[in-house]
Amino acid sequence: MNSITPPTPPPVPEVVHTARSYIRDAMDEALDELTPNMARICRYYFGWCDAEGNPVTRRGSRSLQASLVMLAAQATGEDPLQAVPGAVAVEMVHNFSLLHDDVIDDDRIRRERPAAWVVYGRGPAILAGDCLLAASTRILVDKAGPRGTIAARILNQATSRMLRGMAQEAHYDHTDPATVDLDEYLTEICEAKGGALLGSGALLGTVLCGHREEEGYQLRKAAHHAGLAWQATNDVENIWGNAHLVGKPGMQDLKLKKHTLPVIAAIQSKHPAAADITEWFRRPAHESGDVGKLAALLEEAGGREIAERAINHHLEQALHTVESLSLPESVAASLADLLYFAVTRQPRGR
Amino acid sequence: MNSITPPTPPPVPEVVHTARSYIRDAMDEALDELTPNMARICRYYFGWCDAEGNPVTRRGSRSLQASLVMLAAQATGEDPLQAVPGAVAVEMVHNFSLLHDDVIDDDRIRRERPAAWVVYGRGPAILAGDCLLAASTRILVDKAGPRGTIAARILNQATSRMLRGMAQEAHYDHTDPATVDLDEYLTEICEAKGGALLGSGALLGTVLCGHREEEGYQLRKAAHHAGLAWQATNDVENIWGNAHLVGKPGMQDLKLKKHTLPVIAAIQSKHPAAADITEWFRRPAHESGDVGKLAALLEEAGGREIAERAINHHLEQALHTVESLSLPESVAASLADLLYFAVTRQPRGR
Repeated sequence: MNSITPPTPPPVPEVVHTARSYIRDAMDEALDELTPNMARICRYYFGWCDAEGNPVTRRGSRSLQASLVMLAAQATGEDPLQAVPGAVAVEMVHNFSLLHDDVIDDDRIRRERPAAWVVYGRGPAILAGDCLLAASTRILVDKAGPRGTIAARILNQATSRMLRGMAQEAHYDHTDPATVDLDEYLTEICEAKGGALLGSGALLGTVLCGHREEEGYQLRKAAHHAGLAWQATNDVENIWGNAHLVGKPGMQDLKLKKHTLPVIAAIQSKHPAAADITEWFRRPAHESGDVGKLAALLEEAGGREIAERAINHHLEQALHTVESLSLPESVAASLADLLYFAVTRQPRGR
Repeated sequence: MNSITPPTPPPVPEVVHTARSYIRDAMDEALDELTPNMARICRYYFGWCDAEGNPVTRRGSRSLQASLVMLAAQATGEDPLQAVPGAVAVEMVHNFSLLHDDVIDDDRIRRERPAAWVVYGRGPAILAGDCLLAASTRILVDKAGPRGTIAARILNQATSRMLRGMAQEAHYDHTDPATVDLDEYLTEICEAKGGALLGSGALLGTVLCGHREEEGYQLRKAAHHAGLAWQATNDVENIWGNAHLVGKPGMQDLKLKKHTLPVIAAIQSKHPAAADITEWFRRPAHESGDVGKLAALLEEAGGREIAERAINHHLEQALHTVESLSLPESVAASLADLLYFAVTRQPRGR
């Protein structure tokens, strides 16, 4: 027995626990189809086992996308169990993207543990992500009956948009932050990376319960807003966040000189500190200097405030959109809980 | 203008040229849906542009899988153009796997040029592979009409099997070569990595022309044999190959202490050199020693001969299977040309 008590995971809304219990067996079964070494990497990443494969109960994925699938399914009034393959599939795509993101960004910590590539090596971690992406299509075309095709198309469109967002990030990092359109950044990066997949959950839950895709459009809109706000929050948390809540150490974005939301906003402010910030980002990578001081400059120039204003605006839009839907009260409340939790990592006050 | 004449690409059968001309526009259109930075990486990798994106005509993919799709389509007697989305999709999956494989194996040269990750960085190369994998599903569910679903399932099954093969490689590298079953290695690694995707081409060409999947099973069998032989050839070429024909420098497998076919075969031989080879593979990675000497030991112990015997056996099986099909003579000849070329990189003597 390990005598060190792991830190208590942050509180999670009821709906997430429910979704996790729905998908656990189906996910386990899907992982059994992978080779044992790949399945172990995935289970480690999900927080289901330690590095050697021994079962543990640990902080894993927040399962936001899977929860949204199950809630969208409930909203149809049909048996939500029909949507389980969709919940498993989005969860796979989400974790595929994180497995690769950690390698791409050289992030060594995820969910308060060493990232998969640190434990198993870059090659196996890349391959495990590939296996999850392929399995996400398989579970829909194989296990979701005739509705699987439309579900696969929905998931594929969202995955492609998410990948576009990941690819555009590199583009933004090589563009002068003074010339970036902030709204474009919010749509092309934040909504694409966080909103697209979350939004697909709304449609997957709807169509897998036999309803028309269109019925899920409003809920997808809410998820797009929440996903955007969540990604923008990532940008803020990376600089000023609580490392325990976030599950990984901060400042990595600044060290890598990434042009994230607070950076772009601060550089575009008329504040005198903007010039120093611009200068900092123009210096070669190895002259990174004191990131703590940079964070203070970013805050001083209003970068944090502008980012937080955008986050609050889109979170409000998300909650407002949910309210405007005529849903059973308990489903609406769970949806609001989920989207609020997605953005803030906190339970929603009633 | 670059004044250095690039080396002449190895000769390619007519059927490959035809397939390439069929898929070029559709592939180009699909790449246009990616972000410009991702599209450029793919075009560089395909040999269509230089590192900066300027068009060039260079050695690219051998397009074996796409060619098989188009030949399988011709074999149905229907309009083969219906199968173009399938040809594009397999080509995408094949190049996805190579993009990632080069990162995973730290291979710096591919098709006689710096690998994509060397030119653009590991992160972008990983992401470009991801984009191709996602796009391969998209082109089938979006562009191939109602037959797209079954095509997507066929391609997904093959991709999953290929990924299993890639994942199993790591497993074999950590297993005592003396205990490996050679036939299992040929099926689980060589057939999975080379045969599965090539074999899926046979089914894709068949179903996209509106014929029943089952009609493609015999041709898939031929492709499984040829793909197995081709992967086994890779193992041999990596040690004793002509670097120009192969398009990359050799000996990488030995430097990485990979348990490839000639190594397993040599260690399992009763030859006195087997003990020295075993000893070499047991030494820690940094004490790799003289790989040229190791290659000589492997040949002495019969590792090369056993591998080449397996290759010839499976190539013969592939050609024999094609002969046994009652196909129009020109299609059968083109199929034989293609499979022979896949394994040997040489034109088939008539």
